Amino acid sequence: MATHRFTPTRYHNAIGTAEPCFRLADGDTLITDTIDASGLDAHEVAVAPRPNPMTGPFFIEGAEPGDTLAVRIDRLTPSRATGWTYSPLALTVLDPAAIIDRPPVQRVVWDINRNAGTVKLQEPSPGLEDFAPEIAPMIGCFGVAPAGGQAFSTATSAQNGGNMDYRLFAPGTTAWFPVSVPGALFYLGDGHACQGDGEITGTGIETSFEMQVTFQVLKRSIAWPRGETAEDIFCVGNARPLDQALQHATTEMSRWLGEDYGLDARAASHLMGQVVRYDVGNVFNPAYTVACRIAKRWLTRR
Amino acid sequence: MATHRFTPTRYHNAIGTAEPCFRLADGDTLITDTIDASGLDAHEVAVAPRPNPMTGPFFIEGAEPGDTLAVRIDRLTPSRATGWTYSPLALTVLDPAAIIDRPPVQRVVWDINRNAGTVKLQEPSPGLEDFAPEIAPMIGCFGVAPAGGQAFSTATSAQNGGNMDYRLFAPGTTAWFPVSVPGALFYLGDGHACQGDGEITGTGIETSFEMQVTFQVLKRSIAWPRGETAEDIFCVGNARPLDQALQHATTEMSRWLGEDYGLDARAASHLMGQVVRYDVGNVFNPAYTVACRIAKRWLTRR
Amino acid sequence: MATHRFTPTRYHNAIGTAEPCFRLADGDTLITDTIDASGLDAHEVAVAPRPNPMTGPFFIEGAEPGDTLAVRIDRLTPSRATGWTYSPLALTVLDPAAIIDRPPVQRVVWDINRNAGTVKLQEPSPGLEDFAPEIAPMIGCFGVAPAGGQAFSTATSAQNGGNMDYRLFAPGTTAWFPVSVPGALFYLGDGHACQGDGEITGTGIETSFEMQVTFQVLKRSIAWPRGETAEDIFCVGNARPLDQALQHATTEMSRWLGEDYGLDARAASHLMGQVVRYDVGNVFNPAYTVACRIAKRWLTRR
Amino acid sequence: MATHRFTPTRYHNAIGTAEPCFRLADGDTLITDTIDASGLDAHEVAVAPRPNPMTGPFFIEGAEPGDTLAVRIDRLTPSRATGWTYSPLALTVLDPAAIIDRPPVQRVVWDINRNAGTVKLQEPSPGLEDFAPEIAPMIGCFGVAPAGGQAFSTATSAQNGGNMDYRLFAPGTTAWFPVSVPGALFYLGDGHACQGDGEITGTGIETSFEMQVTFQVLKRSIAWPRGETAEDIFCVGNARPLDQALQHATTEMSRWLGEDYGLDARAASHLMGQVVRYDVGNVFNPAYTVACRIAKRWLTRR
Repeated sequence: MATHRFTPTRYHNAIGTAEPCFRLADGDTLITDTIDASGLDAHEVAVAPRPNPMTGPFFIEGAEPGDTLAVRIDRLTPSRATGWTYSPLALTVLDPAAIIDRPPVQRVVWDINRNAGTVKLQEPSPGLEDFAPEIAPMIGCFGVAPAGGQAFSTATSAQNGGNMDYRLFAPGTTAWFPVSVPGALFYLGDGHACQGDGEITGTGIETSFEMQVTFQVLKRSIAWPRGETAEDIFCVGNARPLDQALQHATTEMSRWLGEDYGLDARAASHLMGQVVRYDVGNVFNPAYTVACRIAKRWLTRR
Repeated sequence: MATHRFTPTRYHNAIGTAEPCFRLADGDTLITDTIDASGLDAHEVAVAPRPNPMTGPFFIEGAEPGDTLAVRIDRLTPSRATGWTYSPLALTVLDPAAIIDRPPVQRVVWDINRNAGTVKLQEPSPGLEDFAPEIAPMIGCFGVAPAGGQAFSTATSAQNGGNMDYRLFAPGTTAWFPVSVPGALFYLGDGHACQGDGEITGTGIETSFEMQVTFQVLKRSIAWPRGETAEDIFCVGNARPLDQALQHATTEMSRWLGEDYGLDARAASHLMGQVVRYDVGNVFNPAYTVACRIAKRWLTRR
Repeated sequence: MATHRFTPTRYHNAIGTAEPCFRLADGDTLITDTIDASGLDAHEVAVAPRPNPMTGPFFIEGAEPGDTLAVRIDRLTPSRATGWTYSPLALTVLDPAAIIDRPPVQRVVWDINRNAGTVKLQEPSPGLEDFAPEIAPMIGCFGVAPAGGQAFSTATSAQNGGNMDYRLFAPGTTAWFPVSVPGALFYLGDGHACQGDGEITGTGIETSFEMQVTFQVLKRSIAWPRGETAEDIFCVGNARPLDQALQHATTEMSRWLGEDYGLDARAASHLMGQVVRYDVGNVFNPAYTVACRIAKRWLTRR
Repeated sequence: MATHRFTPTRYHNAIGTAEPCFRLADGDTLITDTIDASGLDAHEVAVAPRPNPMTGPFFIEGAEPGDTLAVRIDRLTPSRATGWTYSPLALTVLDPAAIIDRPPVQRVVWDINRNAGTVKLQEPSPGLEDFAPEIAPMIGCFGVAPAGGQAFSTATSAQNGGNMDYRLFAPGTTAWFPVSVPGALFYLGDGHACQGDGEITGTGIETSFEMQVTFQVLKRSIAWPRGETAEDIFCVGNARPLDQALQHATTEMSRWLGEDYGLDARAASHLMGQVVRYDVGNVFNPAYTVACRIAKRWLTRR
């Protein structure tokens, strides 16, 4: 149950089976630094190429193929006072006919005011002079080595996690990933200071972070990433089109209700039919992300 | 600003240009009865065939092609003490491989307890003995005559509304529909006592209702249904796959932010990128429904 | 078995249940005129509005709901010497990023040279001076009244046919449509002098035609349009995305192999797996069209 | 311009950046063995695990990132007298409702009769006693290392090629792949003795092969695989849904017509609109494959 501080010196643009940078025991806590989606660190120095350079991989002792790696997100602290976004809306969220009149892509800078707890455009567009949403830090891209010797760009996501850009991967949430290689090989990065549903400008507010997470190895198998917040449990599907991502997430949730809550397929459908919520993690990356979410108030663990 | 009570004697399974059943003035309030998705009325008597028999159409004086019909949902009162749902999960929300083991479709009955304010399975599945979510009434299917002399089954939805099955079409919400024919020709029905996101069992808790709505004709044009609740504004897209529904909803929201809130495409993207929420109305009907939603706290009307 | 000549005086932009313009007996042949997609007749006079104004509906005596209407395409003769197309490629067939550099839409004119048997741009783009593909006439939009009192714009298609824009709906082909109303109510129009797969510029070479077709009522049921050419049989699915259109077409073909060729689902899959061909009718309209096609040389009717 | 014979001793289930098994010069010809999709070699001995174990990777001297590797398929000779397929139709090509009645998956064996030039079920289903389509050998899975240090399962495909299962990757065809790493790192395997469009049973007739291919390095860049047969040129897109695969293929073809045939976007659209053909490579794998194909008779190289 030790806490380790690891300072990265190299980064990865694919989640695969690279040489581990550090080893932790089951139960350990990791504090480390992540750089932003374009490779800028806490000093805005470019230290790695795009996309989404990852810190890692971390070898978690005891994690074996077929296990599940639980990652509790303890703390996400922006490590600089600015972040950046793109505008306008991404090609993937516009009617094709609306793309014709789309203004060119720009990168703009936001101030991250940790005292006020808000983010704000440095040069607000007309009408947004007072727009200052709360800082809501989240991890855009994290996950474990995929199965079968594969390695996926950090631009995308799959059953092993990756660039899901889902705003509930936030402090207090525990994320679960299916382990495919010894040690799991966990990567993390691409922190956002704030982001709406869908990552619809192609970015959250991209910045560098100090992240603290705690690992636990579960001797059980899952097919897709899962998560738990103070309020909810959720399952994540990553695919195109959104329909398929939603199918993966929903099927995984139905399985979970069977495994841990004693509900067969019919009972699960009665419950899900009345209380399920769907969230769109991202509708921008090569694989889209949909979460199927249920409030824990409706559930009794068996 | 009169209030009218209309008792239907016939119903429609398509939203088109049928002969109006009743005429109201701009500003008038309508109180009427709707029957459930399978045609059962308040006495559980089958009075019309499937799917989703509609009450209407209502002719709203002053509504002309190119206008917008605003429909404030004043009250949705279940008119009987039971509703029904299907189980298990719909084919559209399952991984295709999971369909193979899916139990057969069953219809089950829920008690609608207006004193307790909850719904409850009459014969709860094991594990759901205590499952009693709050009554959360909503309109499953409503809208106006489509353009071009078309008529669409009440199984589906389009730019004119229809079977969207979105749970925020609830008391307190005002829905907007694009008018394509003189009088708009408004239909409504398919009330649900409760429903999660996506209508993922193919049903909400289907029951008969007394519905009260108030009409207002707006001399402005919209492309897709819009809505406003106490907290939020939203735009709805209806299409397959979900991606396309989301594109329609997002593009319409960006337009709305320009029209009423003074935000150009770039400013709209800065705001939407941080605060937008997506809801899945239904992922069951021939056209799926996605809502793009923004909290009004972020918006200042110009 | 009479042959009738019908000269239309009005046209329809939706396929529904309009008043029949003419009645024919089972077995009769119809010769009639169709105007082009934008409403221009044989004299290039605008006689009806867009989209795809239809000649019809024709009432076929003896056709009852649940039957199938077979329509043999005997002859499609362009009735003027020019047709038109749009350029460039449609929004639906381009990578979204490629839409940004797309030139604006233009309408251009092609000469239809019936002596040479070819079509040719009146003002060829550089590099296309010698481009003169063969005239290959086809029906872009035809079908029968849909079920349930619906009416669909001639911009789209569904189980009842409609704007499928499939190049094998050509002379010598017999098309089958599922009948939903007494008399079937058959509409036709939107002839093309030539068209590649997918209708990827949003048009074939659009022109007016004299069309000759022969009707036969079959006392059997189908779910989706089917067809037979000299070489092949095919089934058509109309939906979005292409995946779903392909599923409808494939499922219908598997059914057909069972009904008429004595192959159960497993046997059908053995045959289809080795010899099936897929054609993309259109990937432009609100509903896309995919045909599942099999050469008759592989089939023995039972 | 040497010809090399290489006998593999190990196989790969991912296309990535494994250590080269053999080096060839630009212009060289390779003769090698491939095993079937399930890992059975010419003696039906299981020598590698699923899916689609690849022979390779081959290092082609002179190939650098940004180049194109041309692979001429000289000869595909089945190296045993049987192959196998699955039945019934795959989940991905059926209407979801039709999945419920789908018989269980079976593996069956086909005789590959090289004298007769045909394939035939060893135990024909009723109605298929005379069904013996021609041997039509093709490569199911081949390609080069992807960009960015990625590695993809041989179950799927992407811009670097992979499991496209397109029947025109056959003797006489030259395939082009975009090179992302020095030496290109070319893999091949998963030969089929026959296959219809779409690989709709999840298999072609899977067997082991002796394959002969000739490499050429082109100092030009492409985004997606391209190919040339005696009759046609084609571009391949790999993605879900089919719509997106088709967009990639179409956009790449429009580019090619500009690069090599002097047609700008508008001219390319005039030509493609009349003569383009779409083929569905596979509609089974995680990424679907669509080819956009044009007969060379319509093209004049500039």
